[in-house]
Amino acid sequence: MRACLAGGDTMHVGVSSPTLGVIGGGQLGRMLAEAAGPLGVDVIVSDPTPACPASAVARDQIVGDFDDVDTIRGVADRSDFLTYEIELVDPDALETVMEESGIPVHPSPESLRMTQDKLLEKRRLSDAGIPVPAFRPVDREEDLRTAIETFGYPVMLKARHGGYDGRGNFLIAEEADIEPALDAAPGAMLVEQVIEFDRELSVIGVRGEAGTATFPAGENIHEAEILRETIVPARTDDDILTLAQSVATEVLTLMEGRGVFGIELFEADGEILVNEIAPRPHNSGHYSIEGAYTSQFAQHVRAVVGYPLGATQSRDPTVMANVLGDVTDPEPASLTGVEAVFETPGASLHWYGKREVRPLRKMGHVTVVPTGSESRSDLLGTARRLSNGLTFET
Amino acid sequence: MRACLAGGDTMHVGVSSPTLGVIGGGQLGRMLAEAAGPLGVDVIVSDPTPACPASAVARDQIVGDFDDVDTIRGVADRSDFLTYEIELVDPDALETVMEESGIPVHPSPESLRMTQDKLLEKRRLSDAGIPVPAFRPVDREEDLRTAIETFGYPVMLKARHGGYDGRGNFLIAEEADIEPALDAAPGAMLVEQVIEFDRELSVIGVRGEAGTATFPAGENIHEAEILRETIVPARTDDDILTLAQSVATEVLTLMEGRGVFGIELFEADGEILVNEIAPRPHNSGHYSIEGAYTSQFAQHVRAVVGYPLGATQSRDPTVMANVLGDVTDPEPASLTGVEAVFETPGASLHWYGKREVRPLRKMGHVTVVPTGSESRSDLLGTARRLSNGLTFET
Repeated sequence: MRACLAGGDTMHVGVSSPTLGVIGGGQLGRMLAEAAGPLGVDVIVSDPTPACPASAVARDQIVGDFDDVDTIRGVADRSDFLTYEIELVDPDALETVMEESGIPVHPSPESLRMTQDKLLEKRRLSDAGIPVPAFRPVDREEDLRTAIETFGYPVMLKARHGGYDGRGNFLIAEEADIEPALDAAPGAMLVEQVIEFDRELSVIGVRGEAGTATFPAGENIHEAEILRETIVPARTDDDILTLAQSVATEVLTLMEGRGVFGIELFEADGEILVNEIAPRPHNSGHYSIEGAYTSQFAQHVRAVVGYPLGATQSRDPTVMANVLGDVTDPEPASLTGVEAVFETPGASLHWYGKREVRPLRKMGHVTVVPTGSESRSDLLGTARRLSNGLTFET
Repeated sequence: MRACLAGGDTMHVGVSSPTLGVIGGGQLGRMLAEAAGPLGVDVIVSDPTPACPASAVARDQIVGDFDDVDTIRGVADRSDFLTYEIELVDPDALETVMEESGIPVHPSPESLRMTQDKLLEKRRLSDAGIPVPAFRPVDREEDLRTAIETFGYPVMLKARHGGYDGRGNFLIAEEADIEPALDAAPGAMLVEQVIEFDRELSVIGVRGEAGTATFPAGENIHEAEILRETIVPARTDDDILTLAQSVATEVLTLMEGRGVFGIELFEADGEILVNEIAPRPHNSGHYSIEGAYTSQFAQHVRAVVGYPLGATQSRDPTVMANVLGDVTDPEPASLTGVEAVFETPGASLHWYGKREVRPLRKMGHVTVVPTGSESRSDLLGTARRLSNGLTFET
């Protein structure tokens, strides 16, 4: 049944049981389905891996590739709304199915296309007057060398397409790094000035039917370019927190369609620069399940289905720590040492149900909220201790 | 995969993806599955109604009756642990399957058998020295009349088996009510003194592998014997709150197996009496999804699977209001007026995904937590206003 949105001066929203089709069934799809349940929204996912993480909590999974039109068509046939949880989805395939079926896709495939291309993304941001690190397209070695003359070392050579969690990024700190980076680099590239940031921040933003909203800025701690912990709100000045939300709001105006966007930022010398945008719920927003009145996943479901957005304020200061595969080779996933998490008041384990653990694979996360007057640094200490105590090693 | 509990001085808990089989797939099964997701526990449900509420968020549903051994066997075949979310399940069938398959059933079928028979339940409580309203078995009219001579009017004639939400209960306020009550009464009965209570309370208790725990007492507001609102903690004296948890802890010692129990109580003149026990998550515990650090559903999953129990303390004072069918005849379910719920910070809608609304059917609930310094009475006012603003009428 379709959710009904009748017009008039006041919106009159009805709840039945609409079905949301989600292309991609990893942990983001799983947490979307977990959030859709209480809202009475059924979820169908597609994923190339049978018994993908989301399949356990969704109505059904259709097995198929992210760029396969027939798979997306199969999901659309059973859905009232379509969304996606991974940037590997083909925007052309989404558009084809959207046109054929009339089933709306949110965020718009155009937003996906833009954020899939890091050069296009940076250009749009820059053209709109939103601060970004200095960048240049790189079609040949000469472009890279010219950019380095202007920016100075270090710079980051980045794949225009397909990079994530640091994949496709090549740090060039000196002359000797240029050749190896170019040799390793796949396809079209851009080069960016490396920002000496004070903090990496992110803002979860959302475009709803009747406007946009932003969650408070989180502070992200990366290691080897993979997110380890997020602290919300970020431990920085209030005016920086305000500025981060304001820059994120500007970014949202460049996007099309409804849904949640993860907006990665740098804080440098009192300024906010935009690093990257993900047109989907974001790892740095997982804290919101326990830490906010409305989680990023519930917010995404609401936005896509057309329900009013929920409050974005934090309920409590919160810290999230990822549980990454600490193995050297893939093996069946069995996490041990979780009793400390289960027994710590205010700590929650989120386990994605992946059958196989691989080196640095995101297997789950731990969230810690205060049960008394703990500071954000206290919460970080607890989250770090708990996640460090977890292991897949046998 | 089975969760592994290795012995030794310190318990060493591992998380893989055990499967929990749930007999019954109504809203309790649905919220169990929603809570199992983050814990990485897969859920299979059985229910006689195809596309039952839990089916959307569970790995799978097996369609079959609550007392059908083959259905329960089918669930057990795919599960590591079995539980049930409705008292209509046949304890003999559960025991048969448990013995055949070796798959543990929690809480023990013996607990189910005891709570299914209101006379047996009262006798066990009474024999253990736990305060209950005065009661007598009723096999013939004479038993009833003798009891009334002792208790005085009013009394409640109750079916020993199968009653819930006031069904099977017959209030006898005067002589003239006796004949009609006996005529309407199905099968074996008991009679109870009607307590002039100050408040109806309930405590959600849990039996885990390594001990028991209780949530703070909630205050329940019924209308026509159906729960309308729960306020946690109850608005009563602190010593009553302590006594209620202490009585509930005694009740838990009479139960067998692991899991959550809903323990309904009367507060009367500074005393606590036990009314009824449900060997499963309870409507008055729904508040805990937002209101406690561990929800009753997550707690039940933890207990049954053998993970350590979570904190039972409240995170904030919380009020839950049921969304009941306000129609006169069954019709396709479409709830309108929900924008006020969606737009109120601190309010959450839980929609059970039932396709058909019927008079007074439990279709969903609204939970309200404070976003500032709201009192419990403020929260009750908000929850009542929001639930009153919801309607199925067209």
